[in-house]
Amino acid sequence: MAPKGLFLALCLSALLVASWGRKVRHYQWEVGYVFWKPDCQEKVMIGINGQFPGPTIRAKAGDTIVVELKNALHTEGVVIHWHGIRQLGTPWADGTASISQCPISPEETFVYRFKVDKPGTYFYHGHYGMQRAAGLYGSLIVDVADGEREPFHYDGELNVLLSDWYHQDINTQAVGLSSNPFRWIGEPQTLLINGRGQHGCSLASHVLEGLSACEINSSQCAPVTLPVLPNRTYRLRIASTTSLASLNLAVGSHKMVVVEADGNYVQPFEVKDMDIYSGDSYSVLLTTDQDPSSNYWLSVSVRGREPKTQPALAILNYHPNSATKLPTSKPPVSPLWNDYAHSKAFTYRILALKGTERPPASATRRIALLNTQNKLNGYTKWSINNVSLALPSTPYLGSMKHHLAGAFDAERPPESFPGDYDVMRPATNPNTTQSSGVYVLDFNTTVDVILQNANALSANVSEIHPWHLHGHDFWVLGYGEGRNTAVIFPYGWTALRFVTDNPGVWAFHCHIEPHLHMGMGVIFAEGVHLVSRIPKEAIACGMMGKKFMNLP
Amino acid sequence: MAPKGLFLALCLSALLVASWGRKVRHYQWEVGYVFWKPDCQEKVMIGINGQFPGPTIRAKAGDTIVVELKNALHTEGVVIHWHGIRQLGTPWADGTASISQCPISPEETFVYRFKVDKPGTYFYHGHYGMQRAAGLYGSLIVDVADGEREPFHYDGELNVLLSDWYHQDINTQAVGLSSNPFRWIGEPQTLLINGRGQHGCSLASHVLEGLSACEINSSQCAPVTLPVLPNRTYRLRIASTTSLASLNLAVGSHKMVVVEADGNYVQPFEVKDMDIYSGDSYSVLLTTDQDPSSNYWLSVSVRGREPKTQPALAILNYHPNSATKLPTSKPPVSPLWNDYAHSKAFTYRILALKGTERPPASATRRIALLNTQNKLNGYTKWSINNVSLALPSTPYLGSMKHHLAGAFDAERPPESFPGDYDVMRPATNPNTTQSSGVYVLDFNTTVDVILQNANALSANVSEIHPWHLHGHDFWVLGYGEGRNTAVIFPYGWTALRFVTDNPGVWAFHCHIEPHLHMGMGVIFAEGVHLVSRIPKEAIACGMMGKKFMNLP
Repeated sequence: MAPKGLFLALCLSALLVASWGRKVRHYQWEVGYVFWKPDCQEKVMIGINGQFPGPTIRAKAGDTIVVELKNALHTEGVVIHWHGIRQLGTPWADGTASISQCPISPEETFVYRFKVDKPGTYFYHGHYGMQRAAGLYGSLIVDVADGEREPFHYDGELNVLLSDWYHQDINTQAVGLSSNPFRWIGEPQTLLINGRGQHGCSLASHVLEGLSACEINSSQCAPVTLPVLPNRTYRLRIASTTSLASLNLAVGSHKMVVVEADGNYVQPFEVKDMDIYSGDSYSVLLTTDQDPSSNYWLSVSVRGREPKTQPALAILNYHPNSATKLPTSKPPVSPLWNDYAHSKAFTYRILALKGTERPPASATRRIALLNTQNKLNGYTKWSINNVSLALPSTPYLGSMKHHLAGAFDAERPPESFPGDYDVMRPATNPNTTQSSGVYVLDFNTTVDVILQNANALSANVSEIHPWHLHGHDFWVLGYGEGRNTAVIFPYGWTALRFVTDNPGVWAFHCHIEPHLHMGMGVIFAEGVHLVSRIPKEAIACGMMGKKFMNLP
Repeated sequence: MAPKGLFLALCLSALLVASWGRKVRHYQWEVGYVFWKPDCQEKVMIGINGQFPGPTIRAKAGDTIVVELKNALHTEGVVIHWHGIRQLGTPWADGTASISQCPISPEETFVYRFKVDKPGTYFYHGHYGMQRAAGLYGSLIVDVADGEREPFHYDGELNVLLSDWYHQDINTQAVGLSSNPFRWIGEPQTLLINGRGQHGCSLASHVLEGLSACEINSSQCAPVTLPVLPNRTYRLRIASTTSLASLNLAVGSHKMVVVEADGNYVQPFEVKDMDIYSGDSYSVLLTTDQDPSSNYWLSVSVRGREPKTQPALAILNYHPNSATKLPTSKPPVSPLWNDYAHSKAFTYRILALKGTERPPASATRRIALLNTQNKLNGYTKWSINNVSLALPSTPYLGSMKHHLAGAFDAERPPESFPGDYDVMRPATNPNTTQSSGVYVLDFNTTVDVILQNANALSANVSEIHPWHLHGHDFWVLGYGEGRNTAVIFPYGWTALRFVTDNPGVWAFHCHIEPHLHMGMGVIFAEGVHLVSRIPKEAIACGMMGKKFMNLP
């Protein structure tokens, strides 16, 4: 038996280290409910391997990630989306229920296997119902391949995964959003940094008036400390998987240089504070050039909605100060929540690093998407060109590949909206329609998408929507390039360009969890006939399972 | 077009009324979360067509019930079990996840189609995870066929569906039960009659000291009134779908005559109060022979566990008194919770109506099942002969019918337990094992099952377990006959006999929801090779879905 065992071991290591040092990184995860105190109040959350947030995946560009995901929820399906990973050639691993795969049933295991081709700061999260908001997320960081170098220098790295947290369970949130009368989820109770926050108090109560001190009753809600040495440069990897909140981040007395956005290098620019919308990720360089006898606050606060949530604070801990030594200064003051000029100025500064691939000079198709808030039989919805997205139970990838009629609405959704639509006022007729229709795009063509924001149901209200495209990076024609998530500001528009070079079916949607739940998204399909080797288990459900099941 | 439409209509009505007046009764249901105030506190519950409890199904013996069940939950599968219906020839319609069918996925519809062959008082409920405890249940009443008569007379009928209600959501309950350290769900907050109760108060506060009056803030928690005429005989149909509580029911100043148990006629006997365990159903005759100027309390209280839950009260409303006229007497006093002699005396009086079919004189197989509370890697479980039931993700009915290896544990569970096991003390070794193994029974044979209760993990604790058998009625050899749910008393044993005349795979389990969740059940399979025409959609999931999916 010994030689056989040895042979097996040799085979395995051969598998694990592919040519040119590219590795297969293997993870075994179990998704299940856990008791957790993310903000010192105990709730039931979705954890991975008993932990919240989920484990950090760390790999090098060119590596293959294999996640064996076992669903240990009791009655719920589950999927995980690898946000920012393009899934070139593996559209079934995109982790979007109804779109790229069947939800993984309780007690079943699905194997996600995909390449991380581009270095960058990414994350992963649930993409079924509102499970992301229950805590199903974590970081995914891709370093440059061996022998490659980043186009900037740093001495150390700090990871900052941002999220918002509601005390109300996601079932209650979801049924409220789907109720008539409509019940809005409201503002989050707590902002979390790396899954930790403190509810109804401030770590900086000793320097801020009117705020009570935090009683930390668990290491699960202990303040986050970011250890640094003086006079070094650190790369802060910052990502936001908030359910709702748009955020602003600042570090007391320190400036930051933005160098990466959504896995794409940007032309470096210096900021005192930065905005982060749900679905965004950034790298910023921070030099520890301040008085080393102090620690400093990293502060995260709400933007774009009237803030009702305390800023989240972490401690930038200069060596050799104690990690628990609270800064004696006040946390940095964030810009006014509705200072959109400040937000736009930041966003418009994001430009691709010089020398980066240029977008194609022109597009062959142009799709204009009007974002509106509407009513459907009295229920509140979000719509795109007056169509509110209703996802089918049979995933598109299987039904489109196998030409299964009736699995989704055959009618193509509209490519434009009336030219005289007044985006500055509530719609004259707020009623909308619902559909699971698909935008079918020609393979290997260039598509322009113009997102047009509008007034919501109430007068003088227009909200921020950070739109995220699966399977692709896109160029922002207006203000920047090379991203997978772009914001549209209230009443504003954003023009994007992308190339349909990734056969599959891809969601394009507002990354705000309740907005997607209310229909704010569209489906793009491209070159589905070119997709091959879809694992059966990805599509063996719904109408596919029945139609193609042959019993003896 | 008109003639074609007419032809269709004629066909449909031909379908609806089969020969001998037997009807197809058609229901379209949508299962989804709703806001509801079952005890005047608003929670999220599972409702059917927006209502809690679900609609009452009413049919005649021989009718066919067709329920088109659409799952409108967000991420959860769902099934419904038709408790007490034997599903002769339709084992795939028994509504047990992992056993008879795949959970119905969100947005999908499954059609339950089955015959109700025996008149009686039944109910239905969720049978996946702990969804029953979230409110997924309702009444199912089968009258005698046209031309048939019940063996007793009554002038009117009143339906009383009993349940218990927890304020904690079922996810939190389930994760607590599956946690180490173990978190028990505790006693229910409220007992419900027909889905209505009042939390933390008593309708009888005007005649009971120390209890506050109820503030009814919704018709969803309004007192249940049972309208009667004086000097008539009423059939009370009583069923219990409690998650945990064993109950005692009494009607002030009135006696009751028990005439039916679990859809089987019993030798009539008179009681002042009666016990009802989870899974039980009864009919009792009540004669309105009391002073008609008063209304009277129907009172339901907890038995067998130290009661921490207020009795539920309903008003027996004598015509022409106002329905809101509260009885001036105190509610009937229920026996002490631990007066097991009283409980046993009631249970032992339940005997089949004379002339009912006798059990076979002997059995060909005898299975002794020891019920113990155990530890599995530190987690608290319930076990049968030291095996805690772990349900597979691929339903047995499909995998056994199609000989799919590996879908469940091949090892057969033990038929007996050590003769020297001391049921009066905690187990010397509390450790248990987990398995999805099946008791395979020869078709058309007689099987005896002896259920033996034992001491739980703590000394001097032995609990009530009402065991429910799917697909069959059984004879209770010890104390009665013809039932589908039988109790074992603390430290006690109960001997059952049944005939394996229903090809399929059938659960036999403790009807207490958290006990089943913790493994307290076994699986019987009989004549699975004789099962034919299983609808694909019942079994197109898990390993079946993958193995038998043939893609072009």
